[in-house]
Amino acid sequence: MRVVQKYGGTSVGSFDRIKSVADRVKALVDKGDEVVVVVSAMSGMTNKLIGMAKEVSDEPSERELDVLVSTGEQQSIALLTIALHSIGVPAVSVTGRQAGVVTKGTNTRARIEDIDPSYMNEILGSGKVVVAAGFQGTNEKGEIQTLGRGGSDLSAIALASAVNADICQILTDVNGVYTADPRVVKNAKKMEEISYEELLELASVGTKVMQSRSVEFAKKFGVPFEVRSSLNNESGTLVIEEKPNMEAVVIRGVSIERNQARVTVTGIPDEPGWSGRILKALGESEVNIDMIVSNIAHDGKARHSFTMSSDDLGRAQAALKPILSNLTDGGVETEAGIAKLSCVGIGMRSHSGVAATMFEALGDAEINIGMISTSEIKISVTVEENHIEKAAQVVHDAFGLGE
Amino acid sequence: MRVVQKYGGTSVGSFDRIKSVADRVKALVDKGDEVVVVVSAMSGMTNKLIGMAKEVSDEPSERELDVLVSTGEQQSIALLTIALHSIGVPAVSVTGRQAGVVTKGTNTRARIEDIDPSYMNEILGSGKVVVAAGFQGTNEKGEIQTLGRGGSDLSAIALASAVNADICQILTDVNGVYTADPRVVKNAKKMEEISYEELLELASVGTKVMQSRSVEFAKKFGVPFEVRSSLNNESGTLVIEEKPNMEAVVIRGVSIERNQARVTVTGIPDEPGWSGRILKALGESEVNIDMIVSNIAHDGKARHSFTMSSDDLGRAQAALKPILSNLTDGGVETEAGIAKLSCVGIGMRSHSGVAATMFEALGDAEINIGMISTSEIKISVTVEENHIEKAAQVVHDAFGLGE
Repeated sequence: MRVVQKYGGTSVGSFDRIKSVADRVKALVDKGDEVVVVVSAMSGMTNKLIGMAKEVSDEPSERELDVLVSTGEQQSIALLTIALHSIGVPAVSVTGRQAGVVTKGTNTRARIEDIDPSYMNEILGSGKVVVAAGFQGTNEKGEIQTLGRGGSDLSAIALASAVNADICQILTDVNGVYTADPRVVKNAKKMEEISYEELLELASVGTKVMQSRSVEFAKKFGVPFEVRSSLNNESGTLVIEEKPNMEAVVIRGVSIERNQARVTVTGIPDEPGWSGRILKALGESEVNIDMIVSNIAHDGKARHSFTMSSDDLGRAQAALKPILSNLTDGGVETEAGIAKLSCVGIGMRSHSGVAATMFEALGDAEINIGMISTSEIKISVTVEENHIEKAAQVVHDAFGLGE
Repeated sequence: MRVVQKYGGTSVGSFDRIKSVADRVKALVDKGDEVVVVVSAMSGMTNKLIGMAKEVSDEPSERELDVLVSTGEQQSIALLTIALHSIGVPAVSVTGRQAGVVTKGTNTRARIEDIDPSYMNEILGSGKVVVAAGFQGTNEKGEIQTLGRGGSDLSAIALASAVNADICQILTDVNGVYTADPRVVKNAKKMEEISYEELLELASVGTKVMQSRSVEFAKKFGVPFEVRSSLNNESGTLVIEEKPNMEAVVIRGVSIERNQARVTVTGIPDEPGWSGRILKALGESEVNIDMIVSNIAHDGKARHSFTMSSDDLGRAQAALKPILSNLTDGGVETEAGIAKLSCVGIGMRSHSGVAATMFEALGDAEINIGMISTSEIKISVTVEENHIEKAAQVVHDAFGLGE
C-alpha cells in the first residue's frame, strides 16, 4: 500500500517526538508499505522565525518571510530523515520544491498549482521513504512560497493525489472526528467515516479538525484521508467521497460555535438595493457574517438579521451608522452572548422531520431558539450561549449519536 | 560599478550587526553601485544545527546535514533582505539554487561546477540588490549541497565571476592582509595589494585570511578581490593577478607557523622505493606532512626529515614502526617545539640574495636554523618555537617591510 502520513508541529516538537514519529513510520515500512511523510516545522519554530523577522523590521516583506519561515520545515525533514536512518529505515528528505510542489499566488498564502511527483516516485521506487516538507513550494520563478494556515494538511492531501497514494493519514492530537465536541457532550463518539461534504459543513461551523481548503482539495481530487492520533495506534475517522449507504445516517454530527452576536437592522423599506448596501458596508469593514435571516415585519418594513463573532459587533455597528442615517425610522438591535448549534448530515436530504426532531428536543429542554438557517445538509440555530452545552447534548441524544 | 560583498557569520551574528551590514550595502547603492551581497549563517548557527542533528543520531547522513545546515544561510539572506527593505533599499534574496550555483561531489564538501547567473542578473537589472546565500548550491539532481570550510568565500568569488563583477570584497574581522601577524611583529603593515600566488603561499604557511581553494578559484577565473574590515571603512588589501611592477617588492610578507614537529627517519638504504614507502605509510595514517628534506649521511645511508603539526607526531611514530622493523639500523628521531618561518614574494624570482638576507638576519639574532625548504616564491626555515617571534621580527626588519 502507498501511504502518505502527515505529522504536525507538535508531533515533531522535540527530538524525542521526532524519534517516535520515526518509529511509527518504521512500523509501516516493516509491513511493506511505501511511505511519504509530510512534516510541519517543530512547534513554536514558525513563530520564532517570524519573531526574528520582526526584530529586523516591523513590516517584513512576505516574499522574504516565506524564505525565512520555510527553513522550519526544512529542518524538520532533515531531522526526521536522520532519525529514520538511525533505526535502519532508508529515507530521503525533499523540500517543497524537490517534492515538485508548484505554487501560485501571494506569498505567505500561496495555492498549489501543480505537483510534479517524479523525484518522489524515483525515491519510492528505490525502496526509500520520502520525507517531504509541508506548507511550502516554489512558484514558476523558483521563489519559495508558503501555503498559509493549514498548509501542511494541504501539502499532504496534494502529495497523496500526486503519487496516487491509497490513503493519506493526517496524524494529529485528536483521535478523529467526533459526533460532537467530547469536552461538551460526554457520550460523543468517534465517527468511523464521514463524507467530505459533511466535514466541510462541520468545519464551517467551528469543528476545527482541518482547514476547509484541504478538505475541498481532497474532495476535488478524490483523495481519501484519515484523521487519526499521533499518540496511539487506534484507527481514526475516514473522510471519503459520499457513498449511497451513508445516507442511512440522518445526522452525522453536532457542532457548536460560541461567542456569537446578532445584529438586526429594522425599518428597511421593502424595496430593492437595501440588502446589498447593508452587506457591502459590513464587508468593507471586514465583518464576517455567518447566518443571514430576513423577513417583513407587521409595519411592512423589512428586518435583516445577521450573526457574527462577538468580536466584530463594534465594527458592525459603526459600519451600519451611515446607512441608518438614510432610513426614516430605521434602527439597529444587537444581541451578544448567543451561540450557534448545527446538525450536519447528508442523510438529511432523504429523511424528513430532521428539523422537527431538533426543535422538539430543544423545546423539551426549554431552550429557546433564536435564528434558524438551513442548507441542504445542515440546520443551524442560535440559542443563548449559557444553554449551548445542554442544547448540544439534547440534540445529540435526540439523534441517537452517542449510541 | 558592479560589486560583490561577502559578510561572514560574525558580521551577521546579531540583529544589530545585520542592520549595520544593511547600512553598509545602502552606502554602495546610494553611490550607484550594483550590489550582490553574499552572507554566511549567523555565527554559531551552523554548529547549533549540527548539534540538533547529533541529538537525533550519532552519525547523521551528509546529505541530510546539508539540508539542515543550509537553512542557516537561508535565514540570514531573508533577515538581511528584510533589513535592507526597512531602510528603503530594494533587494531580493536568493538561495544557492536560485543564485544558479550548481555543485558536484560529496555532500558537506561539494565543489562548484557551474553558475547560471540569469536570475541574479534579472534582479540586478531591475535595480535591486541581490542577497545570496553563501556556502550552498544544488547538484544536478536538485539536492542541496554545502561547500565545506571557507565555502562562503568561495561562493562570493564564484558569483563575482558569474555576474562579471568589477570587484569582490571579502568583509572580515581583519583590516586586510599584513606583512606579518601584527600581534607578533609590532610594525607589520597592511599591504595595498598582493598577487594570488603570494596569498596562496602565505595561506599555505598559516596566514589564515582565506582558504586556499577560494584564492585558487579567484586566480583561475581572474576575479580580483579585496580583503577588508566589516567594522570600518578603510580600504583593505587587493588580491589580483600578478603585475610586472609587483616584482619590485622582493618580499611581500613574512608568515609563521607554530606547534610544529620534526620527524627524521635515519639509516635508510640509498636505493629506490624507500621514500615512497615512508610517505605512503604517513599518508595512510592521515599525517599531514609539510616540509620534506632528505640527504645522505656520512655512512652512506639516507636521512629523511619531515615537519608536521605536533598533534600528528604520535600518529607519525606509530605509522613508521612497521617500516623501521625492515631496516637493519634504522631509527626515528623526533623533535617537537619547533616553528616555521616563511618569506613570500614573487620578487624573489628576479632578485638574488633573498635567502642570504634572511639567514644573515637570523644569524645576527643568534637564532639557529633547522630545516630549510624553498619554492619559487617562498623560503621556509624551522627554528626553535620560543625564538619564532624574534625571528619574524628580525626578518621582517631585514626586508624593510615595516617601513
